[in-house]
Amino acid sequence: MNGKFIVLEGLEGAGKTTALRTVVEQLRAFGITDLVFTREPGGTPLAEKLRQLIKHETEEPVTDKAELLMLYAARIQLVENVIKPALAAGKWVIGDRHDLSSQAYQGGGRGLDRRFMQTLKDCVLGDFEPDFTLYLDIDPAVGLARARGRGELDRIERAGLDFFNRTRTRYLELVRDNPKVVVINAQQNIEQVTADIQSAVKKFVEFQHG
Amino acid sequence: MNGKFIVLEGLEGAGKTTALRTVVEQLRAFGITDLVFTREPGGTPLAEKLRQLIKHETEEPVTDKAELLMLYAARIQLVENVIKPALAAGKWVIGDRHDLSSQAYQGGGRGLDRRFMQTLKDCVLGDFEPDFTLYLDIDPAVGLARARGRGELDRIERAGLDFFNRTRTRYLELVRDNPKVVVINAQQNIEQVTADIQSAVKKFVEFQHG
Repeated sequence: MNGKFIVLEGLEGAGKTTALRTVVEQLRAFGITDLVFTREPGGTPLAEKLRQLIKHETEEPVTDKAELLMLYAARIQLVENVIKPALAAGKWVIGDRHDLSSQAYQGGGRGLDRRFMQTLKDCVLGDFEPDFTLYLDIDPAVGLARARGRGELDRIERAGLDFFNRTRTRYLELVRDNPKVVVINAQQNIEQVTADIQSAVKKFVEFQHG
Repeated sequence: MNGKFIVLEGLEGAGKTTALRTVVEQLRAFGITDLVFTREPGGTPLAEKLRQLIKHETEEPVTDKAELLMLYAARIQLVENVIKPALAAGKWVIGDRHDLSSQAYQGGGRGLDRRFMQTLKDCVLGDFEPDFTLYLDIDPAVGLARARGRGELDRIERAGLDFFNRTRTRYLELVRDNPKVVVINAQQNIEQVTADIQSAVKKFVEFQHG
Protein backbone atom coordinates (compact mmCIF):
# COMPACT_ATOMS: atom_id res chain seq x y z
CA MET A 1 0.00 0.00 0.00
CA ASN A 2 1.21 3.51 -0.85
CA GLY A 3 2.37 5.76 1.95
CA LYS A 4 0.83 9.14 2.74
CA PHE A 5 2.26 12.64 2.36
CA ILE A 6 1.66 14.87 5.39
CA VAL A 7 2.74 18.52 5.27
CA LEU A 8 3.28 21.16 7.93
CA GLU A 9 2.63 24.74 6.84
CA GLY A 10 2.74 28.11 8.53
CA LEU A 11 4.58 31.38 8.97
CA GLU A 12 7.97 31.71 10.62
CA GLY A 13 7.65 31.13 14.36
CA ALA A 14 4.35 29.25 14.08
CA GLY A 15 5.92 26.20 15.72
CA LYS A 16 6.46 23.81 12.80
CA THR A 17 9.45 22.08 14.40
CA THR A 18 7.59 21.28 17.64
CA ALA A 19 4.54 20.25 15.62
CA LEU A 20 6.70 17.88 13.57
CA ARG A 21 7.76 16.03 16.72
CA THR A 22 4.12 15.73 17.79
CA VAL A 23 3.10 14.35 14.40
CA VAL A 24 5.91 11.78 14.45
CA GLU A 25 5.05 10.63 17.99
CA GLN A 26 1.39 10.29 17.09
CA LEU A 27 2.18 8.29 13.92
CA ARG A 28 4.51 6.00 15.90
CA ALA A 29 1.71 5.42 18.40
CA PHE A 30 -0.23 3.96 15.43
CA GLY A 31 2.73 1.81 14.42
CA ILE A 32 3.62 4.00 11.44
CA THR A 33 7.38 4.20 11.76
CA ASP A 34 8.81 4.04 8.22
CA LEU A 35 8.99 7.81 7.78
CA VAL A 36 10.81 10.08 5.32
CA PHE A 37 11.35 13.73 6.23
CA THR A 38 11.55 16.51 3.65
CA ARG A 39 11.95 20.26 3.81
CA GLU A 40 11.21 22.82 1.12
CA PRO A 41 12.87 24.35 -0.64
CA GLY A 42 15.43 21.53 -0.54
CA GLY A 43 15.60 17.85 0.17
CA THR A 44 17.66 16.69 -2.84
CA PRO A 45 21.23 17.63 -3.83
CA LEU A 46 20.05 20.00 -6.59
CA ALA A 47 17.13 21.35 -4.54
CA GLU A 48 19.47 22.17 -1.64
CA LYS A 49 21.73 24.13 -4.02
CA LEU A 50 18.64 26.00 -5.22
CA ARG A 51 17.62 26.60 -1.59
CA GLN A 52 20.94 28.30 -1.04
CA LEU A 53 20.39 30.57 -4.07
CA ILE A 54 16.77 31.32 -3.07
CA LYS A 55 17.55 32.21 0.53
CA HIS A 56 21.04 33.66 0.42
CA GLU A 57 21.67 35.26 -2.98
CA THR A 58 23.24 38.65 -2.25
CA GLU A 59 25.15 39.56 -5.41
CA GLU A 60 22.10 40.89 -7.25
CA PRO A 61 18.39 41.58 -6.62
CA VAL A 62 16.34 38.38 -7.06
CA THR A 63 13.19 39.05 -9.10
CA ASP A 64 9.93 37.66 -7.69
CA LYS A 65 9.50 35.50 -10.79
CA ALA A 66 12.99 33.99 -10.56
CA GLU A 67 12.36 33.19 -6.89
CA LEU A 68 9.13 31.38 -7.80
CA LEU A 69 10.69 29.49 -10.71
CA MET A 70 13.60 28.28 -8.55
CA LEU A 71 11.14 27.15 -5.87
CA TYR A 72 9.24 25.07 -8.43
CA ALA A 73 12.46 23.66 -9.91
CA ALA A 74 13.47 22.51 -6.42
CA ARG A 75 9.96 21.18 -5.74
CA ILE A 76 9.70 19.02 -8.86
CA GLN A 77 13.13 17.51 -8.14
CA LEU A 78 11.98 16.62 -4.62
CA VAL A 79 8.60 15.27 -5.74
CA GLU A 80 9.98 13.11 -8.58
CA ASN A 81 13.22 11.93 -7.00
CA VAL A 82 12.25 11.58 -3.32
CA ILE A 83 8.56 11.90 -2.41
CA LYS A 84 6.92 9.79 -5.12
CA PRO A 85 9.43 6.91 -4.81
CA ALA A 86 9.04 6.93 -1.01
CA LEU A 87 5.24 6.86 -1.21
CA ALA A 88 5.36 4.08 -3.78
CA ALA A 89 7.57 2.10 -1.38
CA GLY A 90 4.91 2.42 1.31
CA LYS A 91 6.74 5.02 3.41
CA TRP A 92 4.99 8.00 4.94
CA VAL A 93 6.52 11.36 4.02
CA ILE A 94 6.44 14.28 6.46
CA GLY A 95 7.10 17.59 4.71
CA ASP A 96 8.25 20.82 6.31
CA ARG A 97 6.42 23.06 3.76
CA HIS A 98 5.20 22.22 0.26
CA ASP A 99 3.25 23.98 -2.50
CA LEU A 100 0.92 25.91 -0.18
CA SER A 101 3.96 27.92 0.96
CA SER A 102 4.57 29.18 -2.59
CA GLN A 103 0.89 29.97 -3.02
CA ALA A 104 0.90 31.97 0.21
CA TYR A 105 4.37 33.62 0.20
CA GLN A 106 4.91 34.22 -3.51
CA GLY A 107 1.24 34.49 -4.50
CA GLY A 108 -0.08 36.38 -1.45
CA GLY A 109 3.08 37.96 -0.02
CA ARG A 110 4.83 38.92 -3.26
CA GLY A 111 1.56 39.47 -5.10
CA LEU A 112 2.45 37.38 -8.16
CA ASP A 113 -0.34 36.94 -10.70
CA ARG A 114 -2.90 34.41 -9.52
CA ARG A 115 -3.48 32.85 -12.96
CA PHE A 116 0.28 32.39 -13.44
CA MET A 117 0.57 30.76 -9.99
CA GLN A 118 -2.27 28.35 -10.81
CA THR A 119 -0.93 27.46 -14.26
CA LEU A 120 2.57 26.88 -12.97
CA LYS A 121 1.30 24.60 -10.20
CA ASP A 122 -0.91 22.65 -12.61
CA CYS A 123 1.81 22.28 -15.26
CA VAL A 124 4.64 21.37 -12.87
CA LEU A 125 2.86 19.23 -10.28
CA GLY A 126 -0.20 17.97 -12.17
CA ASP A 127 -2.61 16.47 -9.64
CA PHE A 128 0.08 15.61 -7.10
CA GLU A 129 -0.75 17.05 -3.67
CA PRO A 130 -0.36 16.23 0.02
CA ASP A 131 -2.83 13.79 1.52
CA PHE A 132 -3.07 15.86 4.67
CA THR A 133 -1.82 19.31 5.70
CA LEU A 134 -1.62 20.92 9.13
CA TYR A 135 -1.62 24.71 8.82
CA LEU A 136 -0.33 26.38 11.98
CA ASP A 137 -1.99 29.77 12.05
CA ILE A 138 -0.31 32.65 13.87
CA ASP A 139 -0.34 36.44 13.87
CA PRO A 140 2.84 37.42 11.96
CA ALA A 141 3.86 39.90 14.67
CA VAL A 142 3.84 37.07 17.23
CA GLY A 143 5.51 34.54 14.92
CA LEU A 144 8.28 36.87 13.78
CA ALA A 145 9.09 37.87 17.36
CA ARG A 146 9.57 34.16 18.13
CA ALA A 147 11.63 33.56 14.95
CA ARG A 148 13.86 36.57 15.59
CA GLY A 149 14.61 35.18 19.03
CA ARG A 150 16.17 32.16 17.27
CA GLY A 151 18.76 34.22 15.36
CA GLU A 152 19.48 35.63 11.91
CA LEU A 153 16.66 35.84 9.37
CA ASP A 154 17.25 34.88 5.71
CA ARG A 155 16.51 36.98 2.62
CA ILE A 156 12.82 36.09 2.49
CA GLU A 157 12.30 36.34 6.25
CA ARG A 158 13.66 39.89 6.23
CA ALA A 159 10.59 41.09 4.30
CA GLY A 160 8.36 43.49 6.24
CA LEU A 161 5.31 42.77 8.39
CA ASP A 162 2.96 43.75 5.55
CA PHE A 163 4.44 40.94 3.46
CA PHE A 164 3.69 38.39 6.18
CA ASN A 165 0.20 39.77 6.74
CA ARG A 166 -0.55 39.29 3.03
CA THR A 167 0.98 35.79 3.26
CA ARG A 168 -1.21 34.83 6.22
CA THR A 169 -4.32 36.22 4.52
CA ARG A 170 -3.63 34.05 1.46
CA TYR A 171 -2.92 30.98 3.63
CA LEU A 172 -6.29 31.42 5.38
CA GLU A 173 -8.07 31.92 2.07
CA LEU A 174 -6.50 28.75 0.60
CA VAL A 175 -7.15 26.46 3.57
CA ARG A 176 -10.75 27.57 4.11
CA ASP A 177 -13.15 24.78 3.21
CA ASN A 178 -10.27 22.54 2.11
CA PRO A 179 -11.08 19.09 3.55
CA LYS A 180 -7.41 18.04 3.29
CA VAL A 181 -6.18 20.86 5.55
CA VAL A 182 -6.67 21.26 9.30
CA VAL A 183 -6.06 24.72 10.75
CA ILE A 184 -4.33 24.74 14.13
CA ASN A 185 -4.48 27.88 16.28
CA ALA A 186 -0.77 28.21 17.01
CA GLN A 187 -1.21 31.07 19.48
CA GLN A 188 -2.75 28.83 22.12
CA ASN A 189 -0.55 27.47 24.90
CA ILE A 190 1.76 24.67 23.85
CA GLU A 191 -0.27 21.94 25.57
CA GLN A 192 -3.42 22.90 23.67
CA VAL A 193 -1.55 23.16 20.34
CA THR A 194 -0.07 19.69 20.91
CA ALA A 195 -3.47 18.25 21.83
CA ASP A 196 -5.07 19.74 18.70
CA ILE A 197 -2.32 18.31 16.48
CA GLN A 198 -2.58 14.88 18.11
CA SER A 199 -6.31 14.88 17.60
CA ALA A 200 -6.05 15.92 13.94
CA VAL A 201 -3.41 13.28 13.13
CA LYS A 202 -5.41 10.63 14.96
CA LYS A 203 -8.51 11.41 12.91
CA PHE A 204 -6.52 11.31 9.67
CA VAL A 205 -4.86 7.98 10.43
CA GLU A 206 -8.09 6.38 11.63
CA PHE A 207 -9.82 7.57 8.47
CA GLN A 208 -7.07 5.95 6.35
CA HIS A 209 -7.44 2.64 8.09
CA GLY A 210 -11.17 2.80 7.48
CA MET B 1 16.68 56.27 -28.30
CA ASN B 2 16.44 52.71 -26.99
CA GLY B 3 19.01 50.18 -28.12
CA LYS B 4 18.18 46.98 -29.97
CA PHE B 5 18.41 43.35 -28.85
CA ILE B 6 20.00 41.05 -31.44
CA VAL B 7 20.19 37.31 -30.75
CA LEU B 8 22.20 34.47 -32.27
CA GLU B 9 20.54 31.07 -32.22
CA GLY B 10 21.48 27.62 -33.44
CA LEU B 11 22.61 24.14 -32.53
CA GLU B 12 26.04 23.31 -31.12
CA GLY B 13 28.68 23.72 -33.82
CA ALA B 14 26.53 26.00 -35.99
CA GLY B 15 29.15 28.74 -35.75
CA LYS B 16 27.61 31.21 -33.27
CA THR B 17 30.99 32.48 -32.05
CA THR B 18 32.25 33.32 -35.55
CA ALA B 19 28.86 34.82 -36.41
CA LEU B 20 29.04 37.01 -33.31
CA ARG B 21 32.30 38.56 -34.54
CA THR B 22 30.75 39.23 -37.93
CA VAL B 23 27.71 40.91 -36.36
CA VAL B 24 29.91 43.13 -34.16
CA GLU B 25 32.10 44.18 -37.09
CA GLN B 26 29.07 44.99 -39.20
CA LEU B 27 27.47 47.05 -36.40
CA ARG B 28 30.75 48.93 -35.86
CA ALA B 29 30.83 49.72 -39.58
CA PHE B 30 27.54 51.55 -38.96
CA GLY B 31 28.99 53.40 -35.96
CA ILE B 32 27.09 51.26 -33.44
CA THR B 33 29.80 50.61 -30.87
CA ASP B 34 28.12 50.79 -27.44
CA LEU B 35 27.46 47.05 -27.21
CA VAL B 36 26.56 44.71 -24.34
CA PHE B 37 27.16 40.97 -24.74
CA THR B 38 25.04 38.33 -23.01
CA ARG B 39 24.98 34.56 -23.04
CA GLU B 40 22.19 32.25 -21.91
CA PRO B 41 21.80 30.64 -19.60
CA GLY B 42 23.88 33.09 -17.59
CA GLY B 43 24.97 36.70 -17.74
CA THR B 44 24.22 37.77 -14.16
CA PRO B 45 25.74 36.46 -10.90
CA LEU B 46 22.63 34.41 -10.05
CA ALA B 47 22.07 33.31 -13.66
CA GLU B 48 25.66 32.06 -13.91
CA LYS B 49 25.16 29.97 -10.74
CA LEU B 50 22.00 28.55 -12.32
CA ARG B 51 23.95 27.88 -15.55
CA GLN B 52 26.35 25.77 -13.53
CA LEU B 53 23.46 23.74 -12.04
CA ILE B 54 21.73 23.37 -15.43
CA LYS B 55 24.82 22.22 -17.30
CA HIS B 56 26.87 20.35 -14.72
CA GLU B 57 24.55 18.88 -12.06
CA THR B 58 25.73 15.30 -11.59
CA GLU B 59 24.55 14.32 -8.09
CA GLU B 60 21.02 13.47 -9.20
CA PRO B 61 18.94 13.21 -12.41
CA VAL B 62 17.64 16.64 -13.46
CA THR B 63 13.98 16.47 -14.47
CA ASP B 64 13.03 18.17 -17.76
CA LYS B 65 10.71 20.51 -15.89
CA ALA B 66 13.36 21.58 -13.37
CA GLU B 67 15.76 22.26 -16.26
CA LEU B 68 13.17 24.48 -17.95
CA LEU B 69 12.28 26.33 -14.74
CA MET B 70 15.94 27.05 -13.97
CA LEU B 71 16.44 28.34 -17.52
CA TYR B 72 13.54 30.76 -17.11
CA ALA B 73 14.73 31.85 -13.65
CA ALA B 74 18.12 32.69 -15.18
CA ARG B 75 16.47 34.40 -18.16
CA ILE B 76 14.23 36.73 -16.17
CA GLN B 77 17.21 37.79 -14.02
CA LEU B 78 19.18 38.61 -17.19
CA VAL B 79 16.27 40.41 -18.86
CA GLU B 80 15.32 42.54 -15.83
CA ASN B 81 18.78 43.25 -14.42
CA VAL B 82 20.92 43.50 -17.57
CA ILE B 83 19.12 43.59 -20.94
CA LYS B 84 16.27 46.02 -20.23
CA PRO B 85 18.50 48.55 -18.43
CA ALA B 86 21.07 48.38 -21.26
CA LEU B 87 18.42 48.91 -23.96
CA ALA B 88 16.92 51.81 -21.98
CA ALA B 89 20.41 53.37 -21.85
CA GLY B 90 20.60 53.22 -25.65
CA LYS B 91 23.06 50.32 -25.83
CA TRP B 92 22.68 47.49 -28.32
CA VAL B 93 22.63 44.02 -26.73
CA ILE B 94 24.02 41.00 -28.57
CA GLY B 95 22.76 37.74 -27.09
CA ASP B 96 24.32 34.31 -27.47
CA ARG B 97 20.96 32.45 -27.25
CA HIS B 98 17.65 33.60 -25.76
CA ASP B 99 14.12 32.26 -25.47
CA LEU B 100 14.07 30.50 -28.84
CA SER B 101 16.68 28.07 -27.46
CA SER B 102 14.30 26.95 -24.70
CA GLN B 103 11.44 26.63 -27.17
CA ALA B 104 13.63 24.46 -29.44
CA TYR B 105 15.70 22.42 -26.94
CA GLN B 106 13.22 21.95 -24.09
CA GLY B 107 10.05 22.19 -26.19
CA GLY B 108 11.22 20.31 -29.28
CA GLY B 109 14.16 18.27 -27.98
CA ARG B 110 12.79 17.29 -24.56
CA GLY B 111 9.20 17.24 -25.79
CA LEU B 112 7.78 19.37 -22.98
CA ASP B 113 4.11 20.27 -23.33
CA ARG B 114 3.59 23.04 -25.89
CA ARG B 115 0.86 24.82 -23.93
CA PHE B 116 3.05 24.83 -20.80
CA MET B 117 5.98 26.25 -22.80
CA GLN B 118 3.79 29.02 -24.22
CA THR B 119 2.22 29.92 -20.88
CA LEU B 120 5.56 30.02 -19.12
CA LYS B 121 7.04 32.29 -21.80
CA ASP B 122 4.02 34.62 -21.71
CA CYS B 123 3.89 34.81 -17.92
CA VAL B 124 7.64 35.23 -17.36
CA LEU B 125 8.65 37.43 -20.29
CA GLY B 126 5.39 39.13 -21.24
CA ASP B 127 5.84 40.78 -24.63
CA PHE B 128 9.61 41.17 -24.29
CA GLU B 129 11.42 39.66 -27.28
CA PRO B 130 14.53 40.23 -29.43
CA ASP B 131 14.30 42.87 -32.13
CA PHE B 132 16.24 40.66 -34.51
CA THR B 133 17.42 37.04 -34.47
CA LEU B 134 19.91 35.24 -36.69
CA TYR B 135 19.22 31.49 -36.68
CA LEU B 136 22.23 29.51 -37.93
CA ASP B 137 20.77 26.33 -39.38
CA ILE B 138 22.88 23.19 -39.50
CA ASP B 139 22.42 19.43 -39.72
CA PRO B 140 22.97 18.19 -36.12
CA ALA B 141 25.36 15.47 -37.32
CA VAL B 142 27.60 18.13 -38.89
CA GLY B 143 27.29 20.57 -35.98
CA LEU B 144 27.97 17.99 -33.28
CA ALA B 145 31.05 16.73 -35.12
CA ARG B 146 32.39 20.30 -35.07
CA ALA B 147 31.46 20.81 -31.39
CA ARG B 148 33.04 17.52 -30.33
CA GLY B 149 36.25 18.65 -31.97
CA ARG B 150 36.34 21.53 -29.47
CA GLY B 151 36.39 19.29 -26.39
CA GLU B 152 34.15 17.98 -23.62
CA LEU B 153 30.36 18.22 -24.05
CA ASP B 154 28.14 19.32 -21.14
CA ARG B 155 25.11 17.49 -19.72
CA ILE B 156 22.68 18.82 -22.33
CA GLU B 157 25.09 18.43 -25.25
CA ARG B 158 25.55 14.74 -24.41
CA ALA B 159 21.94 14.04 -25.44
CA GLY B 160 21.65 11.83 -28.54
CA LEU B 161 21.30 12.80 -32.20
CA ASP B 162 17.51 12.25 -32.09
CA PHE B 163 17.30 14.96 -29.45
CA PHE B 164 19.14 17.43 -31.69
CA ASN B 165 17.07 16.46 -34.73
CA ARG B 166 13.90 17.23 -32.76
CA THR B 167 15.47 20.50 -31.61
CA ARG B 168 16.34 21.55 -35.17
CA THR B 169 12.87 20.64 -36.41
CA ARG B 170 11.31 22.87 -33.74
CA TYR B 171 13.75 25.70 -34.51
CA LEU B 172 12.78 25.58 -38.19
CA GLU B 173 9.10 25.49 -37.34
CA LEU B 174 9.41 28.51 -35.02
CA VAL B 175 11.46 30.70 -37.36
CA ARG B 176 9.37 30.00 -40.47
CA ASP B 177 7.41 33.10 -41.49
CA ASN B 178 8.78 35.05 -38.50
CA PRO B 179 9.74 38.48 -39.89
CA LYS B 180 12.09 39.10 -36.94
CA VAL B 181 14.24 36.03 -37.69
CA VAL B 182 16.66 35.50 -40.58
CA VAL B 183 17.72 31.91 -41.28
CA ILE B 184 21.39 31.50 -42.25
CA ASN B 185 22.50 28.28 -43.96
CA ALA B 186 25.45 27.48 -41.70
CA GLN B 187 26.65 24.55 -43.83
CA GLN B 188 27.87 26.82 -46.61
CA ASN B 189 31.56 27.75 -46.75
CA ILE B 190 32.63 30.32 -44.18
CA GLU B 191 32.90 33.17 -46.69
CA GLN B 192 29.30 32.70 -47.82
CA VAL B 193 28.02 32.39 -44.22
CA THR B 194 29.83 35.62 -43.33
CA ALA B 195 28.46 37.41 -46.40
CA ASP B 196 24.89 36.29 -45.57
CA ILE B 197 25.21 37.51 -41.97
CA GLN B 198 26.67 40.86 -43.08
CA SER B 199 23.83 41.32 -45.51
CA ALA B 200 21.16 40.46 -42.93
CA VAL B 201 22.62 42.79 -40.29
CA LYS B 202 22.98 45.57 -42.85
CA LYS B 203 19.31 45.28 -43.82
CA PHE B 204 18.22 45.30 -40.18
CA VAL B 205 20.28 48.38 -39.27
CA GLU B 206 19.23 50.29 -42.39
CA PHE B 207 15.61 49.47 -41.61
CA GLN B 208 16.04 50.87 -38.07
CA HIS B 209 17.51 54.11 -39.35
CA GLY B 210 14.56 54.49 -41.70
